[in-house]
Amino acid sequence: MRRQLCYERFIVMTEDSHVDLMAIGAHPDDVEVGCGGLLAKLNGRGYRCGIVYLTRGEMGTGGTAAIREQEAKEAADVLGAKILATFDFGDCRVADNFESRLAVAQLIRRHKPKIIMAPYWQGGHGKRQGHPDHLAAGQIAINAANYATFKKLPIEDEPFRIKAMFHYFLPPEVSPTFVVDITEQFDTWMQALKAHKSQFLNPEKDRDYIWSLESMARSYGGIIGVKYGQGYVIGEPMKIDDIFCLIGTCGKMPEIG
Amino acid sequence: MRRQLCYERFIVMTEDSHVDLMAIGAHPDDVEVGCGGLLAKLNGRGYRCGIVYLTRGEMGTGGTAAIREQEAKEAADVLGAKILATFDFGDCRVADNFESRLAVAQLIRRHKPKIIMAPYWQGGHGKRQGHPDHLAAGQIAINAANYATFKKLPIEDEPFRIKAMFHYFLPPEVSPTFVVDITEQFDTWMQALKAHKSQFLNPEKDRDYIWSLESMARSYGGIIGVKYGQGYVIGEPMKIDDIFCLIGTCGKMPEIG
Amino acid sequence: MRRQLCYERFIVMTEDSHVDLMAIGAHPDDVEVGCGGLLAKLNGRGYRCGIVYLTRGEMGTGGTAAIREQEAKEAADVLGAKILATFDFGDCRVADNFESRLAVAQLIRRHKPKIIMAPYWQGGHGKRQGHPDHLAAGQIAINAANYATFKKLPIEDEPFRIKAMFHYFLPPEVSPTFVVDITEQFDTWMQALKAHKSQFLNPEKDRDYIWSLESMARSYGGIIGVKYGQGYVIGEPMKIDDIFCLIGTCGKMPEIG
Amino acid sequence: MRRQLCYERFIVMTEDSHVDLMAIGAHPDDVEVGCGGLLAKLNGRGYRCGIVYLTRGEMGTGGTAAIREQEAKEAADVLGAKILATFDFGDCRVADNFESRLAVAQLIRRHKPKIIMAPYWQGGHGKRQGHPDHLAAGQIAINAANYATFKKLPIEDEPFRIKAMFHYFLPPEVSPTFVVDITEQFDTWMQALKAHKSQFLNPEKDRDYIWSLESMARSYGGIIGVKYGQGYVIGEPMKIDDIFCLIGTCGKMPEIG
Amino acid sequence: MRRQLCYERFIVMTEDSHVDLMAIGAHPDDVEVGCGGLLAKLNGRGYRCGIVYLTRGEMGTGGTAAIREQEAKEAADVLGAKILATFDFGDCRVADNFESRLAVAQLIRRHKPKIIMAPYWQGGHGKRQGHPDHLAAGQIAINAANYATFKKLPIEDEPFRIKAMFHYFLPPEVSPTFVVDITEQFDTWMQALKAHKSQFLNPEKDRDYIWSLESMARSYGGIIGVKYGQGYVIGEPMKIDDIFCLIGTCGKMPEIG
Amino acid sequence: MRRQLCYERFIVMTEDSHVDLMAIGAHPDDVEVGCGGLLAKLNGRGYRCGIVYLTRGEMGTGGTAAIREQEAKEAADVLGAKILATFDFGDCRVADNFESRLAVAQLIRRHKPKIIMAPYWQGGHGKRQGHPDHLAAGQIAINAANYATFKKLPIEDEPFRIKAMFHYFLPPEVSPTFVVDITEQFDTWMQALKAHKSQFLNPEKDRDYIWSLESMARSYGGIIGVKYGQGYVIGEPMKIDDIFCLIGTCGKMPEIG
Repeated sequence: MRRQLCYERFIVMTEDSHVDLMAIGAHPDDVEVGCGGLLAKLNGRGYRCGIVYLTRGEMGTGGTAAIREQEAKEAADVLGAKILATFDFGDCRVADNFESRLAVAQLIRRHKPKIIMAPYWQGGHGKRQGHPDHLAAGQIAINAANYATFKKLPIEDEPFRIKAMFHYFLPPEVSPTFVVDITEQFDTWMQALKAHKSQFLNPEKDRDYIWSLESMARSYGGIIGVKYGQGYVIGEPMKIDDIFCLIGTCGKMPEIG
Repeated sequence: MRRQLCYERFIVMTEDSHVDLMAIGAHPDDVEVGCGGLLAKLNGRGYRCGIVYLTRGEMGTGGTAAIREQEAKEAADVLGAKILATFDFGDCRVADNFESRLAVAQLIRRHKPKIIMAPYWQGGHGKRQGHPDHLAAGQIAINAANYATFKKLPIEDEPFRIKAMFHYFLPPEVSPTFVVDITEQFDTWMQALKAHKSQFLNPEKDRDYIWSLESMARSYGGIIGVKYGQGYVIGEPMKIDDIFCLIGTCGKMPEIG
Repeated sequence: MRRQLCYERFIVMTEDSHVDLMAIGAHPDDVEVGCGGLLAKLNGRGYRCGIVYLTRGEMGTGGTAAIREQEAKEAADVLGAKILATFDFGDCRVADNFESRLAVAQLIRRHKPKIIMAPYWQGGHGKRQGHPDHLAAGQIAINAANYATFKKLPIEDEPFRIKAMFHYFLPPEVSPTFVVDITEQFDTWMQALKAHKSQFLNPEKDRDYIWSLESMARSYGGIIGVKYGQGYVIGEPMKIDDIFCLIGTCGKMPEIG
Repeated sequence: MRRQLCYERFIVMTEDSHVDLMAIGAHPDDVEVGCGGLLAKLNGRGYRCGIVYLTRGEMGTGGTAAIREQEAKEAADVLGAKILATFDFGDCRVADNFESRLAVAQLIRRHKPKIIMAPYWQGGHGKRQGHPDHLAAGQIAINAANYATFKKLPIEDEPFRIKAMFHYFLPPEVSPTFVVDITEQFDTWMQALKAHKSQFLNPEKDRDYIWSLESMARSYGGIIGVKYGQGYVIGEPMKIDDIFCLIGTCGKMPEIG
Repeated sequence: MRRQLCYERFIVMTEDSHVDLMAIGAHPDDVEVGCGGLLAKLNGRGYRCGIVYLTRGEMGTGGTAAIREQEAKEAADVLGAKILATFDFGDCRVADNFESRLAVAQLIRRHKPKIIMAPYWQGGHGKRQGHPDHLAAGQIAINAANYATFKKLPIEDEPFRIKAMFHYFLPPEVSPTFVVDITEQFDTWMQALKAHKSQFLNPEKDRDYIWSLESMARSYGGIIGVKYGQGYVIGEPMKIDDIFCLIGTCGKMPEIG
Repeated sequence: MRRQLCYERFIVMTEDSHVDLMAIGAHPDDVEVGCGGLLAKLNGRGYRCGIVYLTRGEMGTGGTAAIREQEAKEAADVLGAKILATFDFGDCRVADNFESRLAVAQLIRRHKPKIIMAPYWQGGHGKRQGHPDHLAAGQIAINAANYATFKKLPIEDEPFRIKAMFHYFLPPEVSPTFVVDITEQFDTWMQALKAHKSQFLNPEKDRDYIWSLESMARSYGGIIGVKYGQGYVIGEPMKIDDIFCLIGTCGKMPEIG
């Protein structure tokens, strides 16, 4: 079994390893595809975001593990990510089990994200053009966030509980709970995507990925009436203190008549 | 047909008729049951809330239209509602059609709520202990909010678009999208419920409604780890500007490294 | 009640009133939006298509009944539709009942379509930006197709049974059963849409509809790996004789080894 | 409007009008198709069953209202039904509204059934070969059972609450909650079906209904490992006192070791 | 791999090892939480119940494997369980595979339960406060009950087929098929829960579990109109001989008029 | 671990190993049960079909691996299958993982099927009478079809992409997307089933499988109005070029008026 839990290229870019948000993906470029615009937007507002990949993407048609590592670093720079970590669980071999949950839980405890972004955890169909690693990554994220709170598990650092997990890579029958307007971040997002040359600008591939990804963003944008958007699902009931937050006016105490 | 669209007891309690939130119910006490704690909480923060009933509740086992009107006023006072309006669509006769949509749309245009609370609009089963008026009220609310934006419909005032609609009275197979902690508002909520003496403190009834309603609040509270909660469903994808709002920290620019 | 069943502008463009496909919509432009590329494609292959509207669209923000009639004719011309019929059920008043089912069933018997295209018949949410007339149109189409087979109902002409009904205007949580590539018909589709000037090129409207509609087509196209597509749902089990038809090779008897 | 609520052929066959079970259908033969074996089985055990039709079935391809009335009586005799009541809501016009709910609630109060059997109340698709009257009959039954408990509604007799409602005519995507073995009642069931000559033995019809109905019973039987069965859905949570009742051993106090 | 299949603390409390019902959980206290009131009720009626745990719960925040074993024994005594068996599959490591299915199937063959209670087998979301071991335990139970019927599998004793399986630990979007009134057993249930001191009366924990569990019971009770209830899902179609069993009157032959 | 990936009885019956359709099952007879009529029909039209089993069925109550191999060959002959391949993944041990996906992907590349038939990939309930190997086989098929397109995976032959996958063995709550009329192939289908003497004509078994399988075919047939049918689900959106293919008239260019 090749599924070692050793880190490969864990890169803490600053002294402080805490992040506000950790985006988890199976293969280098998953986070860029599903959350790139969002990360750029959050970075612009001063939030600290981290990116975690469970594999090196070595089975991708384009590129190699080494090439994709370089591309992921470049994309992380574009998006302003504070952390880029990569496991080597094995491309096409990601599985939700005790070991993979522990490894990710360890990372959660170390970086203490308030929010985790992860792929949607179940599919109506694995789909030929989809990937079982995505579903497994979503399941690992859910269980790792749980494990991170158990004090007796063999995980370093103190137990830690995230505030929320949101899911990207929604299957076609799943409607987003919310959509984020990324119109202003569209160019930055495109730049991050194009950093993955081996994937999206590869002349050997016959599919125009950039076109597809732009289409996806236009489609989500249409749901909320903007040009470009990225859509997410909230997987479990949220605790909402002020429901006006949900329409963007919380913190603004309304004037009393 | 008894379904007149004339207002019965439209009571604007202040000069300014605008509200931040409009809670719509089928029978006097529906809003108290589903949103009482929420309304008390919002009122405490200075938001202006209104309550709208589609019928006078004259078919309820306890009370009469006149008694229930008085009880509803008392409960609205307890919750700090700025507006209490009651249609006379006919208890047990509420139906989602052109006329009922127009009537509610008119009210929406007049009071310009940013958020509407309405009963959940579909049921796995009408259920013997449930009520078809609730489903109809949910459907009317959805369609009225839509109609309020159409400039050519025979509705007074300018077209108006609400920001969001949330649903209460969730059937057992529907999990809430979010839950609001009402532990601090629990006593106020109980007081508002008990204002409906003919419904909840009626010695002729053999069911302990207060017990049931407290149980419901405990159950929702349990989902988010508090003593008492009220749960709601978001019916369509939301536009979220800052996803940290969803965990209660938006507006707080995080300190940068 | 204004819901007369009299025809308004029934226009048979050729001697022969039979069609291969009948596309039903609630408001003039619904069919163009949901099936425009498909109709252009079918027309190019010699199939005879007809368009039926249940209302004159008089409540639309832009245009009037008369203007929209003219626009619908122009769009029908662009798409090569052989028939354009319009009921006057009343914009915002469409309801699935005995009378509306009979009226549409009458049309089905007269034109004998093999396939009917109709809006999706139920919605997770009526949605503020959606329209209850769409759901009602879908329900009427389903029931009218059924009524058209009952010999004792007060409908002229012989009982007739369609072969299949497909649905457009899918809510976000409904994945299409199939998608049709309309890349080659994209320009014609755009031309048909732009014939509805009052709707899609109206400077008074602040929303860029053409952008949204193109996005929708790109999104469906992405599902099947083409530039532009239109997606549909099959509402009930199909009788399939040769399953290789489903991948486009039926009729081609394979050579035996 | 032809939808009078007057009774047409209300036939109480014995002095005592109370029944243990009331089976509601839209058209004469619906109950026989969905519950015939069950009714024969219950009759054999001494339970009193009643049959209620909402229409006279005058739009059926075969037969007339008068012929079908005679057939329904014959079938009711075969199944041992104690009561056969028929409304004249109008074939193809059944609708769930205040008047139809009241009419059925009146019947429920009079006959005091513990259990009601009714068509399934919603459909993934009305289906061309299906019937909207069936869905409406299911909805009316649900709401009428509710109305029968409201003391202020204009309904004669004392408020009455049924114990349970079970649903037949399940759409293909709905799996039964339970299946009843009707192997021993199969011949009686066939005899009851064949009493409806105009429907099932009509040489003008090209479809072999008896074959189809037998197939349906075989299919349900297969689910529980018997030759013939009829399947039903429980629409809302049941109160179960002794869960061993669910496997047929309640009432048998097990010997203590 | 630590997942040995050897028994740890298999305790047969009487000579006769047969049980009427076997309740399976992942961690000591799961059965008490989900089925405690039910077991007490069944015990009071003379049914023989057994409890099976798949792990020793050694990863729980409170207690140790040894402490929890002692607590589980005390709780089993309170509930009158005839058998308490504990596997050592490893807390947080429970997985549905060939070995775990065989182990549980072996137990099923030995004790011959008519009914098995098991956790619900799938979750909309693993949830941070939930546990993947619960889902795995439900899947193992389903597959083990199946394996117990296969004569060639390497399992001792004769093939055996249970009559029914019911599920507890329902996710929020799953409505119970039935609820059992445990009002009279409430105190006994509380006593059994409090036997798990390390879990529910642990001053180190900041959550009031007893409050939450009482709330859950009140909520289920409310569904059937009693003070306290426990709710369950029937996972597959039941064979019901006398549908009046479902309302608690089977076995009582009604008098014939 | 006994799960070797070595082939056992790979039998290429002709020189040309390409097939039009590959039907994958877990145990010898699965394909016959779910697709036997379909395969006979396709064979009659000159399509080349292959059958692949993932296990030798050694845990079946009747027969042995050797006996079942012989029966499967006989059945394959009856159905005109061009290829019969059998893996030895272990009966009751089939699991969707990297190794099983690779093994099946290898076979897909070798035989280049346009269509794959596979068991439905998820179940509302594993069901006592069902089998987890079936779900696993469906998941393996989906993922293997995906893996077959990845050029870097350790699989021989060129990357290959199938056109469509259809699913059989539908759980009761899943309605087929389409049904194929197998009335003319019924006798051949029965002959193929009866080749599996150890399974379906085994006097030691107390269940009449032939009766059950005929019932299933009658039930599917009833959905499309024929005597016998087999039903399938399309797992993901199809690319349909000419929607008239879906009603069996594609390829027939209609005459232009």
